[in-house]
Amino acid sequence: MSESDAVFQAGSAGPAGVVKRARRVAVLSPVAWRTPPRHYGAWETVASNITEGLVARGWDVTLFATRDSITRARLHAVIDQGYEEDPAADPKVAEYLHIAAAFEHAGEFDLIHSHYDFMALSYSRLVRTPVLTTIHGFSSPKIMPVYEKYRDGYYVSISDADRAPALNYLATVYNGIDLSLYQFQERAGDDLIFLGRIHPDKGVHLAIEVARLSGRRLIIAGIVQDEVYFRAQIEPHLDGRTVDYVGAVDVAGKNALFASASALLHLNTIPERFGLVLAEANAAGVPVIAMDLGSCREVIEDGQTGFLASTPEQAVQALGRLGEIDRRACRRRVERRFSIASMVAAYEHVYARIFELEESKRG
Amino acid sequence: MSESDAVFQAGSAGPAGVVKRARRVAVLSPVAWRTPPRHYGAWETVASNITEGLVARGWDVTLFATRDSITRARLHAVIDQGYEEDPAADPKVAEYLHIAAAFEHAGEFDLIHSHYDFMALSYSRLVRTPVLTTIHGFSSPKIMPVYEKYRDGYYVSISDADRAPALNYLATVYNGIDLSLYQFQERAGDDLIFLGRIHPDKGVHLAIEVARLSGRRLIIAGIVQDEVYFRAQIEPHLDGRTVDYVGAVDVAGKNALFASASALLHLNTIPERFGLVLAEANAAGVPVIAMDLGSCREVIEDGQTGFLASTPEQAVQALGRLGEIDRRACRRRVERRFSIASMVAAYEHVYARIFELEESKRG
Repeated sequence: MSESDAVFQAGSAGPAGVVKRARRVAVLSPVAWRTPPRHYGAWETVASNITEGLVARGWDVTLFATRDSITRARLHAVIDQGYEEDPAADPKVAEYLHIAAAFEHAGEFDLIHSHYDFMALSYSRLVRTPVLTTIHGFSSPKIMPVYEKYRDGYYVSISDADRAPALNYLATVYNGIDLSLYQFQERAGDDLIFLGRIHPDKGVHLAIEVARLSGRRLIIAGIVQDEVYFRAQIEPHLDGRTVDYVGAVDVAGKNALFASASALLHLNTIPERFGLVLAEANAAGVPVIAMDLGSCREVIEDGQTGFLASTPEQAVQALGRLGEIDRRACRRRVERRFSIASMVAAYEHVYARIFELEESKRG
Repeated sequence: MSESDAVFQAGSAGPAGVVKRARRVAVLSPVAWRTPPRHYGAWETVASNITEGLVARGWDVTLFATRDSITRARLHAVIDQGYEEDPAADPKVAEYLHIAAAFEHAGEFDLIHSHYDFMALSYSRLVRTPVLTTIHGFSSPKIMPVYEKYRDGYYVSISDADRAPALNYLATVYNGIDLSLYQFQERAGDDLIFLGRIHPDKGVHLAIEVARLSGRRLIIAGIVQDEVYFRAQIEPHLDGRTVDYVGAVDVAGKNALFASASALLHLNTIPERFGLVLAEANAAGVPVIAMDLGSCREVIEDGQTGFLASTPEQAVQALGRLGEIDRRACRRRVERRFSIASMVAAYEHVYARIFELEESKRG
């Protein structure tokens, strides 16, 4: 989709002659964490970015999220805190109460934009308000029967790669990052960096292999999600010199890493659903060498903002071509395709399409 | 409630002059187990007894349950097997799909009779069909906020003891057992028996104490739910002579135990919600000595169908009074108050009240 396609004025959607009015949107965020989350919580982050972006564009938005959430939208909360942050919470109770609240108020909205996975779908046929679901990932094949049942709903995928067959997808809308958080780094550093969960899916061991083969220094940052993997395949290589692990980092820590980086290594071993960190690195001007699996070829433009590889050896070869990458072009591409503004504009386009479809249904 | 109050003809409810028609009822059973369950599964058992009882009385009933369920009603199933019996199942997916199916068909029913705990309540305000919930027990204080939110719904408690404050209870309807399963035992046997889950809540250790104090033989039957408790407080007393454990028993095994029993000991340490086994023992003519906690004083009529005790010593004293109990009166009381017929009649009364209330709402 071209940039101009994706942008339209809120409230001016619909065929000429139709009375323009402000559209009321409910954004249904998860309640595992606060919206936006304090630390981890990718779905809540995206729901927050969409909500705040829509408000900035003049939409009438109600955010259904935990009571401690922070938003410029109207907040509707029935759960005090994210159930992952509240030892007294019962996740099942929180989920049912939270989702029900949004659907019980459906009549007040022109659209419910759900980030609540398959559970919210089970309420969708009980209301007249159209429901758009952004699928942030299929957590298990066991949830597919729910999507199959509700396949005629409205869906957005977060990459072309992360799609299930036969669902009624209206678009792929890439997640947008807050570009103001990542300073552009004019000059390349010397280090290779890995940023992400320490888990075999993320191929940290392959990044170490690239460092070893190329003789380059590698700095690893992120939470340890798989302790056994960390002890067996990462820790033995940590010498504080050629391979170093610095733990989890916040935004400032990420920026410091980007400043020291010649490239981000992201040699995932399973298909990536989106890959927010790839966009973050590019936003700082850092080229990315990524495994060609899942969405990586959508986020990284091979030869322009990084390189796609299929083996650690190919990744090593790509290191020799980093000089070909224009760091400014990396940031420009993120601004164009993976910014909050581009994401919100794309969702406005999807909303407009839904309103059109709904109006034609009503005849 | 008197017996005559509770009985009315299906289809003849409502004020005089209102056109009589068959009422269509959806019974929403859990999908943890088949309905009726193969072994364990008290909620599914009751849902099944109500369904079959209503069908026998001429109601138009649709049972929402697993596909392998057995019923004379219309079966609506979206889940093949109980999630407790199917290793491939995802309980959360099964629950959402199953409950949603019932509510998506709400328009086809005059009443949804839910046995699905707090989860089904969260859909209840999205349909016009009234929803009656039989509360089979409050599994945790954490679920109470859902009941508080939906307190204006229609509720039935399974004993006067097992009620939460401020809920809109229409009645207590005692669970009904299938009396044809339990033969009346004319003559008392010699043994004391315990029947139930081996768990501290059920006071198996107190039954052993009564056996020891009285010098009577005790036979224990039931599944071991608390292994640590069994090893520490039950097993050391098993000598195969004065205290014996025979494992889990089916209906035939229960009847054999009832035939050998002078009394059933049920010295629960927490309030009983209903106590199906007390009614089963009484159905066979076996008097029950029960702790005076929760619903026991509702199921057992002190001095008539057994004795209530507050300590093991009082239970021992009661053993000396077993001769006062008329075994035929025990069975008669079960027939009158805890049979499928009495349960179904009581629910018909509740349904009629709901239809009246709904009609007066419509004005």
